[in-house]
Amino acid sequence: MRVAGCDYRTVWLDGSTVRAVNQALLPHRFEIAALATHGDTAGAIRDMVVRGAPAIGAAGGFGMAQVFLEAPSELPARVEYVEQGYQRLRLTRPTAQNLFYALERVRQAGLAQIDPAQAASAAMAEALAYADQDAAACLRIGQLGAPLIREGATVLTHCNAGWLACVDWGTALAPIYVAHRAGRKLKVLADETRPRLQGMSLTAWELAAEGVSVEIIADNAAGFFMRSGGVDLVITGADRIAANGDTANKIGTYEKALCARASGIPFYIAAPASTFDLNCPDGQGIPIEERSGEELTSVAGLDEQGRLVKVRIAPAGATARNPAFDVTPAELITGIITEKGIIRPTAQDIARVIAPAIG
Amino acid sequence: MRVAGCDYRTVWLDGSTVRAVNQALLPHRFEIAALATHGDTAGAIRDMVVRGAPAIGAAGGFGMAQVFLEAPSELPARVEYVEQGYQRLRLTRPTAQNLFYALERVRQAGLAQIDPAQAASAAMAEALAYADQDAAACLRIGQLGAPLIREGATVLTHCNAGWLACVDWGTALAPIYVAHRAGRKLKVLADETRPRLQGMSLTAWELAAEGVSVEIIADNAAGFFMRSGGVDLVITGADRIAANGDTANKIGTYEKALCARASGIPFYIAAPASTFDLNCPDGQGIPIEERSGEELTSVAGLDEQGRLVKVRIAPAGATARNPAFDVTPAELITGIITEKGIIRPTAQDIARVIAPAIG
Repeated sequence: MRVAGCDYRTVWLDGSTVRAVNQALLPHRFEIAALATHGDTAGAIRDMVVRGAPAIGAAGGFGMAQVFLEAPSELPARVEYVEQGYQRLRLTRPTAQNLFYALERVRQAGLAQIDPAQAASAAMAEALAYADQDAAACLRIGQLGAPLIREGATVLTHCNAGWLACVDWGTALAPIYVAHRAGRKLKVLADETRPRLQGMSLTAWELAAEGVSVEIIADNAAGFFMRSGGVDLVITGADRIAANGDTANKIGTYEKALCARASGIPFYIAAPASTFDLNCPDGQGIPIEERSGEELTSVAGLDEQGRLVKVRIAPAGATARNPAFDVTPAELITGIITEKGIIRPTAQDIARVIAPAIG
Repeated sequence: MRVAGCDYRTVWLDGSTVRAVNQALLPHRFEIAALATHGDTAGAIRDMVVRGAPAIGAAGGFGMAQVFLEAPSELPARVEYVEQGYQRLRLTRPTAQNLFYALERVRQAGLAQIDPAQAASAAMAEALAYADQDAAACLRIGQLGAPLIREGATVLTHCNAGWLACVDWGTALAPIYVAHRAGRKLKVLADETRPRLQGMSLTAWELAAEGVSVEIIADNAAGFFMRSGGVDLVITGADRIAANGDTANKIGTYEKALCARASGIPFYIAAPASTFDLNCPDGQGIPIEERSGEELTSVAGLDEQGRLVKVRIAPAGATARNPAFDVTPAELITGIITEKGIIRPTAQDIARVIAPAIG
């Protein structure tokens, strides 16, 4: 998508270097990170320079291609290096299904070749294909989801499942972009999404850059706006969807789904087929990452002189608990917008549509 | 309650000066504000130097006593000054029922006296009585609510309805303090309570000062902890309770009540009888204050040098909506802990218990 007159993807391969929009600096600075090795790429995923499940998948795929580029020529050292790199990339974030999926695809493509150079180029081709397919899937999600947004609608979203979270277009925001580009009038309420404020700093930024009307609200205010008639539709992304439709997404998604149900508002998940984990029967099988409490107790922002400063907002010595995701049970979800169609969140419909798509 | 070895109330009268714990500086600095005139007191209520419905009531009562101290001796100038001061104090915060109640009590006590000096001393006596009665009511709420907290329980609370929000003891936190002082083991999960972070900066601070085990969580995580069995009981305060039990409280309370209902967890409101507005039939009649979006888009905290710094966390030019309260419908509330007993949130029970208490 466009930033200051140029088209960008969130992450791409430039020779053997992975380049990525540094999302840890947004919305205050727009910088491109250069990740020279798979270790750098793993660090960028872990530190959320790259974030958002599909973008993590693409970055992981490129990182896995870097592993093959870096690996020694001789067997078995090569296989050992590949396995170590695979594990290193895999352990960066425990919840993102897209990451595991992309890593596996690129690893298998590389391991299928005996010649080291052919292994590296097969891995690169597979990583590039993953990224292109993700961008195409997101556009398709946008086209399929856009009719849900009627003229004049207000859409509430949580966290950032926009183009910054993907390779391009976004998942939850793709229908909004497609509807907006088709000339439909609409408005977005963006939950700020504590603790990391991705809604405040990324969703509000990218929507405004595209010219979509957006207002930031406290996560606490989502229920108020839904109950008082100010929301027509909720769309969020997903980090992993179990076989029965239970969906892990950014912490707080479950609360917003409860609010939507209480007010009779449709609640949609938008995610590519690669987000589904059909080996996971339901939400109880999805591990929930608990991150450092410091993400809550400190906040970074611009001071009056325009310097990026981190400030502590908690009392000295306070402790915080910080689960990064929650699971929204399938029964609270109206539908799941995928590139294969809008699916009802039932094991039957998911198996019918998704199983053929992801093999 | 105790701070660094001394006993404090949140607000008190010192001659003709109102003194108050400056809650805008907590948890980083502990300072006492000196409010020399009723205009200063009104400003302190508006700017949330004093905050929390009962503390606002007490501060308003003292401010109204200041109005009588300042008023010219002659009629009708005196009555005109009193009415102007009353309106000025009344317009500081539109939602707090306790404020209106305290202002009315002190105004009537003062206006009942013809002699100016007697009017001022009657107003002061009434304001002091209001503060003492609030402290006694809070202690009683603590005594009545403490049996709800069993040994080993985890209590979730939203915003700050502790002693800092009242004159002493608190409302939602009073049962916790009474149970803790009785030697019961318990733990508190404190929602950080965006946008103003009263849970992070006040609740966590005052509980830790008293030696109660407390962990801060993102507002978004409350549903996660409730759904995963980590919460036994929710207690929050209230800003206004309608005749049918619908309760206005800090934005986000409604979402937490929905979460509690979904997980079968008891959800209690703790509030003195003065919080009830029996003239308001239900929650639809409670006006909801919308505050500046800047409360969302900027955050104050300590930088690495220990300086209190305000930083902007939103993209340049972003707009934010900031409703400060929401209404939790009575059907989501298990009970209302008052100094007159624990009431079921029905019009009948409220009328029976509260109407005689508040005349």
